[in-house]
Amino acid sequence: MPDLFGDRLIDAIASRQAPICVGIDPIFDQFPSELTEDIDPGDTDAVLDSIFEFTTRVLETVAPLVPVVKFQSAYFEKYLWEGVEAYYSLIAEAKAMGLLVIGDIKRGDIGTTAAAYAEGHLDDVATDDIEDAATPDAITVNPMMGADTLEPFVKVARATDKGLFVLVRTSNPGSGEFQDVKLEDGRTWSEMLAERVNQIAEGLVGSSGYSSIGTVVGATQTATMESLRRRLPKSIFLLPGYGAQGATAEMTRSAFQNKTGAVVSASRSILYAHKDKKYAAHFGDDWEAAVKQAVLDMKADLDKVLS
Amino acid sequence: MPDLFGDRLIDAIASRQAPICVGIDPIFDQFPSELTEDIDPGDTDAVLDSIFEFTTRVLETVAPLVPVVKFQSAYFEKYLWEGVEAYYSLIAEAKAMGLLVIGDIKRGDIGTTAAAYAEGHLDDVATDDIEDAATPDAITVNPMMGADTLEPFVKVARATDKGLFVLVRTSNPGSGEFQDVKLEDGRTWSEMLAERVNQIAEGLVGSSGYSSIGTVVGATQTATMESLRRRLPKSIFLLPGYGAQGATAEMTRSAFQNKTGAVVSASRSILYAHKDKKYAAHFGDDWEAAVKQAVLDMKADLDKVLS
Repeated sequence: MPDLFGDRLIDAIASRQAPICVGIDPIFDQFPSELTEDIDPGDTDAVLDSIFEFTTRVLETVAPLVPVVKFQSAYFEKYLWEGVEAYYSLIAEAKAMGLLVIGDIKRGDIGTTAAAYAEGHLDDVATDDIEDAATPDAITVNPMMGADTLEPFVKVARATDKGLFVLVRTSNPGSGEFQDVKLEDGRTWSEMLAERVNQIAEGLVGSSGYSSIGTVVGATQTATMESLRRRLPKSIFLLPGYGAQGATAEMTRSAFQNKTGAVVSASRSILYAHKDKKYAAHFGDDWEAAVKQAVLDMKADLDKVLS
Repeated sequence: MPDLFGDRLIDAIASRQAPICVGIDPIFDQFPSELTEDIDPGDTDAVLDSIFEFTTRVLETVAPLVPVVKFQSAYFEKYLWEGVEAYYSLIAEAKAMGLLVIGDIKRGDIGTTAAAYAEGHLDDVATDDIEDAATPDAITVNPMMGADTLEPFVKVARATDKGLFVLVRTSNPGSGEFQDVKLEDGRTWSEMLAERVNQIAEGLVGSSGYSSIGTVVGATQTATMESLRRRLPKSIFLLPGYGAQGATAEMTRSAFQNKTGAVVSASRSILYAHKDKKYAAHFGDDWEAAVKQAVLDMKADLDKVLS
């Protein structure tokens, strides 16, 4: 396995032949009934046990099919420190199954504070002495505070062969309001950001031609995708927004370069496929079969664009 | 005590006659020697015990002097879930001492995810059944992803009489790069942000005339302070950057309106005053006396501007 995160991810995408990231967003309310019945939603221990079982079974289902999963920290932080313990523990499980793991934490802060975040969230030293806990292979970071605030994260990523995904253009409906605003030089704010992040990404490019400093670009952002890709030729694009947020495979086309360099992320449309009429009718209570089929359908959808 | 967070903070500032927030940034390397000697920095339990003792003694020292403290989440997350447990536990301690507490977490994410963050970090339901744990009175949030991503936080703040401080212009040296960039309409990006955040803040104004939706504006940002204040007349300004980051009281002058409406935050210059020659010579090993004197000196410095 190559050392640099960017190379490892490009390799894993190729070996699974699936540029797919499954988002681990454990939302108890949406779980299959077999994992919620008889559980009091106010009983945190019981809810966390259920989150553990649900997530483990999702990971087992998707591990043979996809290269990478993305854990959404918020759904664990909701359960305070017990949730955070589950986060690190389930990341260790995912890594043991051969999956690459992105921690979707969207942190960002000034120098010494950013360094503390990087240590806790990216540096294995934090978990080395703890059984059944691991830090992710990469984390998402928020660059709003300035490029200087990214440096401590880049430093730890470089020292530990890990990666970052810097928010450049997000997938939410209101994302354009602050990110697509036009600067006096004609670029949008995100385009300016993309050019600056590219300078940082160029410092950590591996043999695949891609950097360990990737970027988050909403799969929903077709209008600006090409422009951002041109400005960030060496960053792996992590593209959230597929499925539940409305993006299609076709919308991600210009994020790919020679059929690689991007990974499309879907969370709710895969994890809760059992609630989708399309799958419910066919699979009934077999929710894991629905998860698997949703991944296979997404793969087929992306294949059409990449073939 | 008034119900709305904005009113509670304005009241507390007035009753302490000190527009000062002490930043709780527990950095083990910087602790007084009595709290580090005989401790292996790799022994997380021992380090966390030391963080507990240091923070408790800082809180006891500053509680009679200042209205509010700000816990920097990163220095707790560095120690994974055990650190997070310490965070919630020490926040409960601070509140029991009559301090208002800001959780400096700088979260920001899309709809359902933002709601999960708000539940874990702001909603007392999360800690109601847990002894010795509490959520803060307000949290810092990052608005980069769009005003729609602030809504779930505002909703929880409104329902729980808590508050937010939205990042508008940060204190770090590189903050201008993305925040001060000029838009085609002549405003800076932060000025645009300020106008949009003001619309949100206006929806939660209390009897003090100030909103529970405050903003973070670096005390170092003199060039833009007046312009941001004009755009945000009803937001309490949380001004980090005093002391270790180089801001002076004079630099915060235009954040205040009729001597109120702002709170200046200092972390390292107060917590680690014992390392400052100015205090070390006088107080020797009595580091708590140095902390107290640093707060009193900061108060005197601000009094000059506000009198």
